[in-house]
Amino acid sequence: MRAYDLIRKKRDGGLLDGAELSFLVQGATDGSVADEQLAAFLMAVFFRGLDPVRELPAWLDAMLRSGQVLDLSAIPGRKVDKHSTGGVGDKISLPLAPLAAVCGVRVPMVSGRGLGHTGGTLDKLESIPGIRVDLPIERFAELVDRLGLCLIGQTAEIAPADRKLYALRDATATVESIPLIASSILSKKLAEGIDALVLDVKVGRGAFMKTLPEARSLARTMIDLCGAMGRRCTALLTAMDAPLGWAVGNAVEVAESIEVLRGRGPEDVRELTLQLGVEMLLAGEAAPDVPTARHRLETALADGSALRRFAEVVEAQGGDAAVVADPRRLPRPAAVRELRIARGGVLAALDAEQVGLAAVELGAGRARKEDRVDPAAGLVLRKRVGDEVRAGDVLAELHAADAARLDAGEARLRAAVALSDEPPLAQPLVLGRLG
Amino acid sequence: MRAYDLIRKKRDGGLLDGAELSFLVQGATDGSVADEQLAAFLMAVFFRGLDPVRELPAWLDAMLRSGQVLDLSAIPGRKVDKHSTGGVGDKISLPLAPLAAVCGVRVPMVSGRGLGHTGGTLDKLESIPGIRVDLPIERFAELVDRLGLCLIGQTAEIAPADRKLYALRDATATVESIPLIASSILSKKLAEGIDALVLDVKVGRGAFMKTLPEARSLARTMIDLCGAMGRRCTALLTAMDAPLGWAVGNAVEVAESIEVLRGRGPEDVRELTLQLGVEMLLAGEAAPDVPTARHRLETALADGSALRRFAEVVEAQGGDAAVVADPRRLPRPAAVRELRIARGGVLAALDAEQVGLAAVELGAGRARKEDRVDPAAGLVLRKRVGDEVRAGDVLAELHAADAARLDAGEARLRAAVALSDEPPLAQPLVLGRLG
Repeated sequence: MRAYDLIRKKRDGGLLDGAELSFLVQGATDGSVADEQLAAFLMAVFFRGLDPVRELPAWLDAMLRSGQVLDLSAIPGRKVDKHSTGGVGDKISLPLAPLAAVCGVRVPMVSGRGLGHTGGTLDKLESIPGIRVDLPIERFAELVDRLGLCLIGQTAEIAPADRKLYALRDATATVESIPLIASSILSKKLAEGIDALVLDVKVGRGAFMKTLPEARSLARTMIDLCGAMGRRCTALLTAMDAPLGWAVGNAVEVAESIEVLRGRGPEDVRELTLQLGVEMLLAGEAAPDVPTARHRLETALADGSALRRFAEVVEAQGGDAAVVADPRRLPRPAAVRELRIARGGVLAALDAEQVGLAAVELGAGRARKEDRVDPAAGLVLRKRVGDEVRAGDVLAELHAADAARLDAGEARLRAAVALSDEPPLAQPLVLGRLG
Repeated sequence: MRAYDLIRKKRDGGLLDGAELSFLVQGATDGSVADEQLAAFLMAVFFRGLDPVRELPAWLDAMLRSGQVLDLSAIPGRKVDKHSTGGVGDKISLPLAPLAAVCGVRVPMVSGRGLGHTGGTLDKLESIPGIRVDLPIERFAELVDRLGLCLIGQTAEIAPADRKLYALRDATATVESIPLIASSILSKKLAEGIDALVLDVKVGRGAFMKTLPEARSLARTMIDLCGAMGRRCTALLTAMDAPLGWAVGNAVEVAESIEVLRGRGPEDVRELTLQLGVEMLLAGEAAPDVPTARHRLETALADGSALRRFAEVVEAQGGDAAVVADPRRLPRPAAVRELRIARGGVLAALDAEQVGLAAVELGAGRARKEDRVDPAAGLVLRKRVGDEVRAGDVLAELHAADAARLDAGEARLRAAVALSDEPPLAQPLVLGRLG
């Protein structure tokens, strides 16, 4: 078999069989297919797609089999994870995982790091002093069994083909392909040994998918692909025009997550946590219907059991569990500044992408993969879209290591703000559900 | 400027400006743009094209400027070259260059080597003992001035961007793109310092372009692109379903070319040489009209002046000029075999691609770029399409280094033959002219 012939077949709109797709994925993994050939194939897939029935499951299967696939079948109960396509201020995994776990779902959660304007669960978690996200697989499985959850990063053994192909796509403008996005996400998620997946597909200015039809198409592709692989999948399509919650960064988002676990916190973060929690409980067969699931989740927030479970998993992963009782133990910034609004009006928009980039300027994220993240950096908004504001009102508190970073973050954050004379139309948080 | 953004722009159907195209070509030349990015860009061009007015001339200009561009303006007279898109038995350059030169056109000819089923002028030339095709540019210019022609190979200094991009296209199934083909050919041809170019665009089973519309589109693109670069270009579209002439190989094609220069040789080779010669004389302003041009060319074949000019250039390039008087001095094969036809009928087809591959099996060509060519290998047909044949008739004489190669060539050549009960429709040699 020659990569040339497979590129040509895809280029001309042909269908590749399982052996041919496996040849390419294996070639990506072991280096036997050259990078330029993989790049040309990926661009051909951008234009021609992968057939959802005859190609995509075989492609995903080959990616999965390129590395380790966890077998958690010895652990009783259904294993369910949640995946978000990435947003700004999207700390939902932090309160959701212990909340779902305490309600009876097993949550083997393998998360990623932030890149560009979107944050990553791992970076946020690592702002908790001492916490380890690189646990051995045995310890991971043990905590999923004992505590119902564990939060780790992708290991080198999981889906190495995806790591290779993603790096190529990132360099060659072939990221924006629904079959490639779907197979990339699922190659990592299904390797966790889950029975079901709940997707949070973000839509809007700060999301990867800018429009509802695109988001719907990605969700449908992933749900069908999970089905082909014998896994249950449901998806919520949720708004990502403005940041979720008040906090954008690392330590600040952990603090906000703790607030949610205390039964407080910003309404949008709490509501989305509950709605995704309902999906997890249903997928995990931990509740028979929506009202029961919702009631259990609200109870676990109100009675402190979810918060305690979070403290337990932090401690089990080597972190300072005292931060859960006292978030002031989280890393504190050297420099803080209040950003004030120059003129009055109604806050019409707070562009999530620009806010995310402001957090990167402050040091909370990565412009490039190799950048280091400052756990103490970030911002806390004081106003939300729809608020009436007056000149001099504080829009946000900025956290950074020094004044230069504060300056850069401030400039970027100012670019995110749109004022108007009229209040904007209220946007629903959840735009649709597919399953 | 980032390659990523340029790939993305082309992918999405945008137009790149001159600086952007130049950035990519320069990046291909100096290695500052990664191979996988170039490959993705080339595949995006396969799908999106390059705009013939707003992109292609700038792309070609950047490719030209990636290397040395000869300035032959000090040499009086118009400099004209001929380029064929590649065929089987296509030795036309060998008789045509001295013929056009002796009729007053300057022919600075930079040729290529064979690859796959098509032969290359350089390989054929090199079957002449002692001949050098790697002359320094000064010597090349001197011979163009003094003899009206010189026949060399592409130097490392000419269009290095094309060498890099062509190798990538060859590996990534992005060869078949008309703008990329046109710019690749012209980057080498215009670097020769020519005023005009005559194209022989082959059409048919043994050609790169299988259909007349494709061939016409390539010819039109190249003519317009030459026009944008201030160069005159005309094109003949010519049949390549069966081989040109009787001989396919290296020494055998030189011998056949000498026959043509003696005023004899196969009718199709002579006719195509004359018709392309007319185009060269018109483009070179060496004749006022077609009848005058044709008459001069026929005279130069009849009076031996074209043959003498060929002997002069062979000698000037270090070759054994005595082969021109006595082609038996050309390399002789160690093994010869007559291939006989198994059953009678009408020779309905002699698939040029299969005949070309038979020559490769005999040792006359290259399956891979790094293969060495045997100058004595090849085949000489004894029958032509349309001939009535009887069982036991000799179809061809095969030349090779040993019996194993003869066996391989024979098997392939048999696959080229189609017999029928009815004579095939006569096919014209020249299918069209564009200018």
